[in-house]
Amino acid sequence: MKSKGYRSERELVHMLWEKGFAAIRAPASGSMSYPAPDIIAGNGRRYIAIEVKMRSNLPVYVSREDVENLVKFSKIFGAEPFIAIKIAKEGWRFLCLSHLKQTRNGYKIDDEVFYSGLEFDELVGNLRQKRLFE
Amino acid sequence: MKSKGYRSERELVHMLWEKGFAAIRAPASGSMSYPAPDIIAGNGRRYIAIEVKMRSNLPVYVSREDVENLVKFSKIFGAEPFIAIKIAKEGWRFLCLSHLKQTRNGYKIDDEVFYSGLEFDELVGNLRQKRLFE
Repeated sequence: MKSKGYRSERELVHMLWEKGFAAIRAPASGSMSYPAPDIIAGNGRRYIAIEVKMRSNLPVYVSREDVENLVKFSKIFGAEPFIAIKIAKEGWRFLCLSHLKQTRNGYKIDDEVFYSGLEFDELVGNLRQKRLFE
Repeated sequence: MKSKGYRSERELVHMLWEKGFAAIRAPASGSMSYPAPDIIAGNGRRYIAIEVKMRSNLPVYVSREDVENLVKFSKIFGAEPFIAIKIAKEGWRFLCLSHLKQTRNGYKIDDEVFYSGLEFDELVGNLRQKRLFE
């Protein structure tokens, strides 16, 4: 069965190719014992590692382990880490680690955090690049 | 069933992590309609896209399509393209595109081409970097 998560990952891969990034879905985590994001993309200048979460509603909880794996992979690979959240009727937002609010067991993405994230055009464009790298 | 190709890809992913590269296997080609290598690896300075072929004996034939897909992906993503050949009793060699001999329908890797390839330590190390980028 193809899950909603799987469909969302494929959707995001398509969106990235359309914007000039070569993107691939990584195999399901756990297939090997190394940290891996859901998607890796590059355009020759920027490399992006993305953990994807598709949900019906906010808030979304992301485990500490998911974030740690994303950070670990990104540091070694040499990529900017992002958490991509797709909320059914709201669409996509892309969160830097600095956007996240820590809870006891992980991170909570509420309305405030979600809407502080980048929109897709901001992620792949130059609109708020400066902010990203501050 | 796990093929020999699959096992070879996993072996190479392990080897890359041991040498300080974050590496992932890409899903089987054809799962989406975009070009994709078998493995992508990065260490923050270098990004490598690898097409893996495991065979019992030389010569090995690589299709024009496989090479074109590797080149297309690598150019957009921003990675050095390599063809990794594992021959059962000879081990691994890593070929730049300039190493390959063109045939009518693709590329032939004979003894001469195979042994002109980089060994693994050369691929991930600095021994022949200069040659690689000439």
